[in-house]
Amino acid sequence: MKGYKVIFQPGDLEIEVLAGSTIMEAINEAGFDADFPCGGRGKCGKCRVKILAGAGEPTAVEQEILKEKELEDGIRLACSTKIHGNITVELPEQLQHNILITSGQRAFQVEPHLNKIFVEVEKPSLDAQRSDWRRLKDCLAKHGYNHSDLEVPVSLLRQLPGTIREAEHCLTAVMYGNKVVGIEEQDTTGTMLGMAFDIGTTTIVGYLLDIYSGNELGVVSTLNPQAKFGADVISRITFANQEKDGLEKLHAVVLEAINKLIGEAAEKAGISRKHIYGISIVANTCMNHLFLGISPRNVAVSPYVSAISEPLVINANELQIDINQAGKIIVLPNIAGFVGADTTAVLLATEIDRSDDIKLVIDIGTNGEIALGSREKIVACSAAAGPAFEGAQISSGMRGATGAIDHVYFGDKLEYSVIRGGRPLGICGSGLLDTVAGLLELGIINKRGKILPFEQLTNNAAQGFKDRLTKCEGEAAFLLADASKTGHGRPIMITQSDIRELQLAKGAIAAGVRVLMEVYGIKAGEIKEVLLAGAFGNYLNPHSACMIGLIPLELESKIKMVGNAAGTGSKLALLSLSEYRRAAGIAGSVKFVELGSYPKFNSIFAECTYFKTI
Amino acid sequence: MKGYKVIFQPGDLEIEVLAGSTIMEAINEAGFDADFPCGGRGKCGKCRVKILAGAGEPTAVEQEILKEKELEDGIRLACSTKIHGNITVELPEQLQHNILITSGQRAFQVEPHLNKIFVEVEKPSLDAQRSDWRRLKDCLAKHGYNHSDLEVPVSLLRQLPGTIREAEHCLTAVMYGNKVVGIEEQDTTGTMLGMAFDIGTTTIVGYLLDIYSGNELGVVSTLNPQAKFGADVISRITFANQEKDGLEKLHAVVLEAINKLIGEAAEKAGISRKHIYGISIVANTCMNHLFLGISPRNVAVSPYVSAISEPLVINANELQIDINQAGKIIVLPNIAGFVGADTTAVLLATEIDRSDDIKLVIDIGTNGEIALGSREKIVACSAAAGPAFEGAQISSGMRGATGAIDHVYFGDKLEYSVIRGGRPLGICGSGLLDTVAGLLELGIINKRGKILPFEQLTNNAAQGFKDRLTKCEGEAAFLLADASKTGHGRPIMITQSDIRELQLAKGAIAAGVRVLMEVYGIKAGEIKEVLLAGAFGNYLNPHSACMIGLIPLELESKIKMVGNAAGTGSKLALLSLSEYRRAAGIAGSVKFVELGSYPKFNSIFAECTYFKTI
Repeated sequence: MKGYKVIFQPGDLEIEVLAGSTIMEAINEAGFDADFPCGGRGKCGKCRVKILAGAGEPTAVEQEILKEKELEDGIRLACSTKIHGNITVELPEQLQHNILITSGQRAFQVEPHLNKIFVEVEKPSLDAQRSDWRRLKDCLAKHGYNHSDLEVPVSLLRQLPGTIREAEHCLTAVMYGNKVVGIEEQDTTGTMLGMAFDIGTTTIVGYLLDIYSGNELGVVSTLNPQAKFGADVISRITFANQEKDGLEKLHAVVLEAINKLIGEAAEKAGISRKHIYGISIVANTCMNHLFLGISPRNVAVSPYVSAISEPLVINANELQIDINQAGKIIVLPNIAGFVGADTTAVLLATEIDRSDDIKLVIDIGTNGEIALGSREKIVACSAAAGPAFEGAQISSGMRGATGAIDHVYFGDKLEYSVIRGGRPLGICGSGLLDTVAGLLELGIINKRGKILPFEQLTNNAAQGFKDRLTKCEGEAAFLLADASKTGHGRPIMITQSDIRELQLAKGAIAAGVRVLMEVYGIKAGEIKEVLLAGAFGNYLNPHSACMIGLIPLELESKIKMVGNAAGTGSKLALLSLSEYRRAAGIAGSVKFVELGSYPKFNSIFAECTYFKTI
Repeated sequence: MKGYKVIFQPGDLEIEVLAGSTIMEAINEAGFDADFPCGGRGKCGKCRVKILAGAGEPTAVEQEILKEKELEDGIRLACSTKIHGNITVELPEQLQHNILITSGQRAFQVEPHLNKIFVEVEKPSLDAQRSDWRRLKDCLAKHGYNHSDLEVPVSLLRQLPGTIREAEHCLTAVMYGNKVVGIEEQDTTGTMLGMAFDIGTTTIVGYLLDIYSGNELGVVSTLNPQAKFGADVISRITFANQEKDGLEKLHAVVLEAINKLIGEAAEKAGISRKHIYGISIVANTCMNHLFLGISPRNVAVSPYVSAISEPLVINANELQIDINQAGKIIVLPNIAGFVGADTTAVLLATEIDRSDDIKLVIDIGTNGEIALGSREKIVACSAAAGPAFEGAQISSGMRGATGAIDHVYFGDKLEYSVIRGGRPLGICGSGLLDTVAGLLELGIINKRGKILPFEQLTNNAAQGFKDRLTKCEGEAAFLLADASKTGHGRPIMITQSDIRELQLAKGAIAAGVRVLMEVYGIKAGEIKEVLLAGAFGNYLNPHSACMIGLIPLELESKIKMVGNAAGTGSKLALLSLSEYRRAAGIAGSVKFVELGSYPKFNSIFAECTYFKTI
């Protein structure tokens, strides 16, 4: 279907939408946090927008609701007007000062960490022999800086005499607070790009952004090259501690990967890496420490203490990050040894710190980071889920990659979907969840997770799956795809052991949720929203998650996927000094609950490994 | 003669004096700015001091002036008691709060740039899992620091987890403002040394100091190794501009020299260079720029603008100065392209900025830096004297080194002194001054500097020197030492050309003084003190200087030598944050006068090349 351009003014934000989309859809698509009180049904008339160019004939609804003068002026209802050509829309005033992140769906104020100031420095003469730096300071003083507060590093002083004369005294000063951190020839105030990074244990994602407009110019990603030294956090900490130069190696490869991604993003966008003035980093505590070159040793041993949990701003050259020499590395704060800046970023993106309602946030991975709270208080913990959700230690398990069964449907017969189609090669976490949830609903497995012998099944619907109950290396198993249907010619099954692995994983998360509710002093019913962050959280079937008791059953209707909220938090901190500071406030105020030392945690966990126990 | 130790308490300042010296002499020698109202004649009784150990029998004067009880308590008169053994003296109260620098003779408050704070960091537990940095911050907060203001570089965070555990949580934090710049195991608060440097075009001098007590622990010096790339400022600027990597070479050799001197001083004093936490740098503007690695190119071409005149504090490792990793390089501010931080330091040491009286400060070298002022205002200029005062471009000239005739006396016959004795090898600046002044007084040369033929001499006293009037390569000359008396077997003479060189040199200084007086709007008579700084200034005979008109004749009785006041200023800025800030204030407020663009400067200069014209 044909696509058209929608340009939002002011701001020049341009997106492409399919013909026939409404302006409301385009506004949502662009990521603006607009209110449509009647839900877009053309009833309330509150979604008036002004079409600056490309307005078509008004619809019947618009003719009814809008005045003639409004129609003449290009006023339309965003929910009613369909787009059949390129169109320019003036944003409603309440949206004009908010720039949204497409993946994040929330408003914030762009407020760069660095400021650029164009100055025309006075030329010296025998009557005005002030030093180069002094004359530059005189210019900056006119922009509200205090002479005696201004600082400059020696490295820039070395460039100053040459640059000031090359540029015939027309310079752009790059400011970080009262420090001059860059001096550029001529007026470069229009250019300031940045990259927001989310460094995961497995993958690293980087978003290239225009720091002034907040526009995303590209996304790049790579596998975390530290994987070759250890697949998970614990094995990397071991490597850092025990191998010669282990820490240095882990530190070096992640920096190299970041520098490579920066180069890739710059090339794709057709810009120079020197136009990038800042990168933000969210990562779990271990990845955060390895990125900084700080030993994560003590995170792994009781009492699980990190070296630093605070946010940091570091000069790019201090970490040898190859961007503009004025560039800053903005590192988001950790909460605890196993609740890292990625969780801080999720909380920042989802704004729980300003929520009147109590929300539960779960980011499921090898460790499940769980937070519960509202503007009143936030509690958080880390649950050692193990790798089952990522398809590891599951007999037919695999990552959520091409060929993985990602969803399973138990209808009259069993159906499944395969990532990117074709014959399945294995099953990933979300597929496992669906399978076990379905088997539970059919009564094929009991509350304790046991696959029942066929003769014990009581549910009629289970009868149709009789043939799939089989054995694998002596233990009970459920056949998803026989050898003739798979890509590799081997059957894909869920074994009794696989179910035990899943029970341990879901038990850890469920126990974490239970403990946080106890600490907070609430029942599940008081939770108004469950936000699932991260790749797995966005892929799972909420019903399945509730069926197996990963999430309290009564919260099924309150589940909301928030996408890569950690990435969104990273972007927010990069684009806005206030959001960066807010992240520090969040990380500092979250009460961390150490599950290992929580009274009776073991019995809560054991109970939670059962199905439907919450 | 035998020497004894005098220890001053409190402060433990120890000096050695010759047997028979008075305590008054020892107090002066140690650099305390004490008042002796009756001039040390044993009349006023106001120089009472308490002898804590080693008091001998009271003198007759003491028995007369002091009460019996006082004598029993060890009270003596500083001007009367002679030292005939090691002695410990309690300082009079007014001197106790001032720690003096021996070479500086002025009081100031010790106030280190860095602070050391000993902390016992809380050990972490499962109930207290705050990060290492957070727990350190909690300790610092108890010392008045604000949590959210505290900063730490990544390099220290990398050390923190190891150091905190090695030291069993007992640490010393080294603070620079709100920044933690060093973390040391256990309590090291007692140790903080520093070095004050004076980087001259020719020599570099470094003073090792205890930053807490201000005590000088040693002095080291070396020739400036940049000399191999050019003897003077201008030739080094040329080298920096025109040679490949010229700037880098000049920068590298001075850093190497500084690092070597630091090592030498540390070794002599038996301390580690890691105990040195700061070095201060005074230098002329060109040496300052080369030390910083900044091109001095524009200092040499009109309008003679420096890259920076402001003070700087730089991390030692940024400049690869090998001292403690927390160390700071404190760089004093320049005033103008040819009035550098050495002049600022002289003004700081001599406190002209707080003087009610108008003072004239002259630091004579290849460039003569001249300042005139009081607390009201200070004006300064740089006079291009050329190298005559340093013995260069003088037929028999040499530096003020072994073998140089440094003073010449015209009595019944001509006498001279030679540095370190022996036969003379040449004449240095102060000897040249004495010779020309003597010849002027005798009427052997006239006001225009011409050596008169013997028959034109009118002064009877001149008759005795008739034989010394001779010729050298066809021009008139005055013989100081004939070939049989010199170390190299060649005569030492002052030629007509030598006198012309001296006229240019003294004319430049005298014209500078004249211009500053005009700018200031005063006559010579209003100047209350003439302070001569630097090696040459301390060596010259004030009468000779006035006789030839280098300094206005009427100021002869007001001349005072202030020693290496630049070095003293360097020490002050190192030991005291307030003095460092004061230096910035001085440099920023001095009005620089560019002689080259001063109206009628050429005719003033021409007039000043004559003798006795001021």
